Amino acid sequence: MKYSEFFIPTVKDVPSDAEIISHKLMIKSGMIKQSSAGIYSWLPLGLKVLKNIEQIVREEQDNAGANEMLMPTIQSADLWIKSGRYDDYGKEMLRINDRSGREMLYGPTNEELITDIFQTYITSYRELPKNLYHIQWKFRDELRPRFGVMRGREFLMKDNYSFDLNEEGAKISYNKMFKAYIKTFLRMGLTPISLRAETGPIGGNLSHEFQILANTGESTLYYDKELESLDTESLDPDKLQSYYAAVDDQHDENNCPIAKENLKISKGIEVGHVFYFGTKYSEKLNAYVQDKDGKRVAVHMGSYGIGVSRLVGALIEANHDEKGIKWPKSVAPFKLSILNLMPDDQNCNTKSLEYYSYFMDENIETLYDDRICSIGKKLSDNDLIGTPVQIIIGKRDLAAGIIEIKDRILNKTEKIKIDEVKKVALKKLTINAF
Amino acid sequence: MKYSEFFIPTVKDVPSDAEIISHKLMIKSGMIKQSSAGIYSWLPLGLKVLKNIEQIVREEQDNAGANEMLMPTIQSADLWIKSGRYDDYGKEMLRINDRSGREMLYGPTNEELITDIFQTYITSYRELPKNLYHIQWKFRDELRPRFGVMRGREFLMKDNYSFDLNEEGAKISYNKMFKAYIKTFLRMGLTPISLRAETGPIGGNLSHEFQILANTGESTLYYDKELESLDTESLDPDKLQSYYAAVDDQHDENNCPIAKENLKISKGIEVGHVFYFGTKYSEKLNAYVQDKDGKRVAVHMGSYGIGVSRLVGALIEANHDEKGIKWPKSVAPFKLSILNLMPDDQNCNTKSLEYYSYFMDENIETLYDDRICSIGKKLSDNDLIGTPVQIIIGKRDLAAGIIEIKDRILNKTEKIKIDEVKKVALKKLTINAF
Repeated sequence: MKYSEFFIPTVKDVPSDAEIISHKLMIKSGMIKQSSAGIYSWLPLGLKVLKNIEQIVREEQDNAGANEMLMPTIQSADLWIKSGRYDDYGKEMLRINDRSGREMLYGPTNEELITDIFQTYITSYRELPKNLYHIQWKFRDELRPRFGVMRGREFLMKDNYSFDLNEEGAKISYNKMFKAYIKTFLRMGLTPISLRAETGPIGGNLSHEFQILANTGESTLYYDKELESLDTESLDPDKLQSYYAAVDDQHDENNCPIAKENLKISKGIEVGHVFYFGTKYSEKLNAYVQDKDGKRVAVHMGSYGIGVSRLVGALIEANHDEKGIKWPKSVAPFKLSILNLMPDDQNCNTKSLEYYSYFMDENIETLYDDRICSIGKKLSDNDLIGTPVQIIIGKRDLAAGIIEIKDRILNKTEKIKIDEVKKVALKKLTINAF
Repeated sequence: MKYSEFFIPTVKDVPSDAEIISHKLMIKSGMIKQSSAGIYSWLPLGLKVLKNIEQIVREEQDNAGANEMLMPTIQSADLWIKSGRYDDYGKEMLRINDRSGREMLYGPTNEELITDIFQTYITSYRELPKNLYHIQWKFRDELRPRFGVMRGREFLMKDNYSFDLNEEGAKISYNKMFKAYIKTFLRMGLTPISLRAETGPIGGNLSHEFQILANTGESTLYYDKELESLDTESLDPDKLQSYYAAVDDQHDENNCPIAKENLKISKGIEVGHVFYFGTKYSEKLNAYVQDKDGKRVAVHMGSYGIGVSRLVGALIEANHDEKGIKWPKSVAPFKLSILNLMPDDQNCNTKSLEYYSYFMDENIETLYDDRICSIGKKLSDNDLIGTPVQIIIGKRDLAAGIIEIKDRILNKTEKIKIDEVKKVALKKLTINAF
């Protein structure tokens, strides 16, 4: 993509209500624009990141054997009245009357609707287990929406629902998702910490939340240092669940079960939550199947959420410096920037275009900065939007057979010989580290 | 994907309100389930088709130089009051009060919001032209939602907006989209007919609608037969716009400008609409730029819609028979089915799995029907869900060194020698015809 043909409206000033760094940087880098309180338009750069994150989430759901579907945003109140949650949800639920006066709502989550779909089609234990998910916009009418996309009103969530014949099966489904979550966050270059959690309004008897480490995070985490160096090849959910991890108000210094030298303290941000809640919804919404003996039994369910749009903010909280965002390669909107510092120079143009077409042919998403603007703006914009690898082409360097290559993660720039640029850049782009 | 691990709840009976064939077939084949009047859940098979269509639409938008972004579903009423459309829209607009009593709405379209985004960032003619689009769910509170996803209340639309300095530039943008639309529909195996149209509530002075041919379509079209055989390599929008095409109430037999032998009559379904409306919104919503002489001028705008979810229904209307759907390859949820007629036979299993892994390695989206069910059900389900190429593996045939291969489009089955199966199937899958 040529920068001149792409809409990246970077701005200098951020509104005073942008309190946290991810919110500030998303506005500065032209990723989002607020349209109403807690409601955002995703500008092209922001949408690219959102879709990269969504795709990693999707792939790990599919790898775990889940089937993707898509439920609508607007639901009838009927099922929520049946489940008893229509009143429970209070003012956070966006309630709507349609033109004929029917009570509708903008779904804040989908336990009711998916249970209804399940019970329409599935009647026998032979069709179990079932595991369905969707990635869809939700609405929660927060009293004080803030922190940008981290606590917006309209937000993108992946929610998955499992259906099993009994508790034993449900635990297997639970652990499959648990493992998928750890993999999902690791692929984004994040360090996930799983914590035993309260089940809250979703209900049920088993729940974990997933936080990712970020210095600017909202909660303080206390956890076994082993959790920072997981072996991705042989992830064992039960073993993982046995490590110590607690948030601030759960942690008691005098009753900590692990030795002090193994305890780490860090800030974290919640990005996912998993629940096993047994037959809470299946009983109320009539999701029964026949078991082997022909007996009618309520299915055991779990639900599993990841805050997809929230992750965009969380990733920035975990990856930034004073210059801007430092995208992990797996989610970066562009993996490589080519900065043509002298677009009015024939040699700079020719070289830039050669690299641009080369890396595009290599299927590397490349931003070619061909803008006619100051060198300073070019350098600072590319650091702000956080492209992990940057090739910087200047007139004098080029004449001397030299090109600069920048590693945005390490903030290191090297001058290298022209005939090594492609090799060095490819190596940096494909290297395993984030 | 193994059929046994994929959720395709085919059903025999369809509700009485399913009047048209696409609605019936989408329910029968387990693509959708209604959740409220005019609001649908997209089950896994339906979602696959929706996403294939969405991706073709996206690619042709990108090829035309448009930038993808994403505006929210819920908007504040403020901008609509400014544009004057808050009252105009009447009861079709889903109006919402949030918890603090603010007037909100579920966007039925996005002229207001995109104009506001534009005017926030763009101030100079140097940044023109701009062309932005999104693919997002919309809501229109139809009095009588019907025809399944063809006239639903919550529906997926691609809407694109162009911004130019003057009418001349705007016409160039208009024609670019015109061309992109023809290409989009052709890639789906459809025959698009473009017609001069009324501008209606969007306003403006130039508009075309795009219909696709389907025997069961809603409108009757009269058009120059040349429009049925477009040269995709050298599409010329202005030339295209000069061919005769009219709907029922525009056509006058006695005043038809073309010779009778060149006139074709067919049924059609509207799937897209493009508008040039000058400065209607830019003046009201303050979208002005400085021109070369430093003068402040209102930008000239156009908007361009494609009904993405509607296309799913339209494609079925254009491609079906009494057995079910006949998907064009470019949008088929699975390109190939492997029907193992005897899953309890070792030879059938081995052969089926060999083909399954072979075609998956070839990156062909394959459905392996490994279900334990009657042969009749297996054959009829795969015809119903409309996989274009089907490999049918039976015990007796296999022992005789033979396998059946079915072309669902032509409804022709051939028996071929085992060692030719891969070659023949690949040829059928990659052949240019839809």
